[in-house]
Amino acid sequence: MASILIIGGGGMVGQKLASALGKSPLSRANDSVTLFDLGFADNGAPAAHRVTGNVTDDALVSSLIAQRPDVIFHLASIVSGEAETDFDLGWTVNGRAFWNFLEAVRAEHVASGEVWRPRVVFTSSIAVFGAPFPDKIDDTFLSAPQTSYGAQKAISELMLTDFSRKGFLDGLSIRLPTICVRPGKANKAASSFFSGIIREPLNGKEAILPVSTDVRHWHASPRAAAGFLRHAALIDLDQVGPRRALNLPGVSCTVEEQIEALRDIAGNDVVALIKPEPDEAIGKIVAGWPRDFDPERAKALRFKAESSFHDIINTYIAEDLPKS
Amino acid sequence: MASILIIGGGGMVGQKLASALGKSPLSRANDSVTLFDLGFADNGAPAAHRVTGNVTDDALVSSLIAQRPDVIFHLASIVSGEAETDFDLGWTVNGRAFWNFLEAVRAEHVASGEVWRPRVVFTSSIAVFGAPFPDKIDDTFLSAPQTSYGAQKAISELMLTDFSRKGFLDGLSIRLPTICVRPGKANKAASSFFSGIIREPLNGKEAILPVSTDVRHWHASPRAAAGFLRHAALIDLDQVGPRRALNLPGVSCTVEEQIEALRDIAGNDVVALIKPEPDEAIGKIVAGWPRDFDPERAKALRFKAESSFHDIINTYIAEDLPKS
Repeated sequence: MASILIIGGGGMVGQKLASALGKSPLSRANDSVTLFDLGFADNGAPAAHRVTGNVTDDALVSSLIAQRPDVIFHLASIVSGEAETDFDLGWTVNGRAFWNFLEAVRAEHVASGEVWRPRVVFTSSIAVFGAPFPDKIDDTFLSAPQTSYGAQKAISELMLTDFSRKGFLDGLSIRLPTICVRPGKANKAASSFFSGIIREPLNGKEAILPVSTDVRHWHASPRAAAGFLRHAALIDLDQVGPRRALNLPGVSCTVEEQIEALRDIAGNDVVALIKPEPDEAIGKIVAGWPRDFDPERAKALRFKAESSFHDIINTYIAEDLPKS
Repeated sequence: MASILIIGGGGMVGQKLASALGKSPLSRANDSVTLFDLGFADNGAPAAHRVTGNVTDDALVSSLIAQRPDVIFHLASIVSGEAETDFDLGWTVNGRAFWNFLEAVRAEHVASGEVWRPRVVFTSSIAVFGAPFPDKIDDTFLSAPQTSYGAQKAISELMLTDFSRKGFLDGLSIRLPTICVRPGKANKAASSFFSGIIREPLNGKEAILPVSTDVRHWHASPRAAAGFLRHAALIDLDQVGPRRALNLPGVSCTVEEQIEALRDIAGNDVVALIKPEPDEAIGKIVAGWPRDFDPERAKALRFKAESSFHDIINTYIAEDLPKS
């Protein structure tokens, strides 16, 4: 039986991961899964154990680490927009608390006589990249983030790699594509519309499209994200080598291609619910985002995403579209 | 008059910089220079003001920042070898203390009504790169360090860039080549021999060469390092743009080319003092170091290094060889 701690287990990806582990445990027996987050939705994924608290609570984090889980998924962070408007909060949670987490793991590793060395899978982001970009970003392209969130993710990757190199833990950072189609409500993230223009029409609602249809971006489904995490927990790290931050596979497509995929699957009436309403501010932000990747290493390591945006829409319909 | 704080002003590069500023001030009038370090040699460069203390002393650092210097050079760090053997010391000084330094600058920026915004020049290192490398490292190659020191330098760069982007300070990180020929005594750094095989023979002493003569590496003189720092303090940052970490120019040459340059300048008898004594451990470390760069951005920004290893040797002879 594998014992698993999911830090940020109450969020959308954490819940998808918990569900996925319920169906396909990491070990032959059922896993023992602890979810840790600020709070949990009532209808969330089942789990043996839920712990409510803040990642900045060092004593609480240390008490969870003291359970010596085999695998720790670290998904918790202040999101991009909030880290940009609240500089201290972003650096405190995404910076200082992550460092303290690593030190707590190291202390427990030492306390165990250097026997306990957990797999730590950290969700990084393509926000570690900043424009200008090549058409396809390859595995040796620099991290030059242009947001505090991106800087914090890049720094966390560097620390996780160094703690791994020293043998305190076995870490791997995975840079998730923009997750699409996110279930639930729209939020104020600049990327929200990528999900919104698919999700809202499929639910019979209008969706605003704030950018030009020729905008190209990089996507994977929530199910693919859970699969990346599960694969990162099981992979042979000797095959990964010393560079412990990976660009992941995804689907590169334009908004127009997204819309045409929706038309193929759901028809003209559904597509007609998309209302173009250009928003210069959002257009400017999105222009600074990566468009496409050549994630050679992750592909060789058998990380798998969808192969088309059609698949991404069908995943949403199968897993998250409310049945009417 | 420009007021200047040199953190790490007692070290070899800090002393070269202080001397250079004595001859060519940043401003028309003489600069007011404060040197801050753990200690100072008796015969060190003259300076208006010396402060002895530790960069981990937050109160002392804040009191120096409270003077609101126009330019801060941050050169202080635990060196590569020591950061590798003493994990806590490296992360405390090169990580936590640098972060606290940035927060102290930010606090003073806020206290000034956001009027005081110093130029901060940080000496990073080519240790931010880890093998495998291309033959020439270009300006978009990733930082994937394989030492704690390299990780700490890469993290400091990311933080300095983010604090700059937010307008708290005007930061620039410069990745120094291996400085050669270092004056003074040999030390236990793996790179020490690059200087030793030139310095010791020119002083009539034997020098050990622990690696093969076909090892290629990247060098600049102490004088060039002081010039880089001075230029980084004066450069128009709008021309630099948002990517605030620069690979600098240098001389790429093999150990054999180093030796032949020494022969041209000082003759066969001097070269005969170099004793090959292969050291597998040093050979292995050095094999993981960058060999050559294509520092296009820094060249366009008019950073200047020597154009040959002959120049590097002649700089040592002119500036640092004890007159007999």
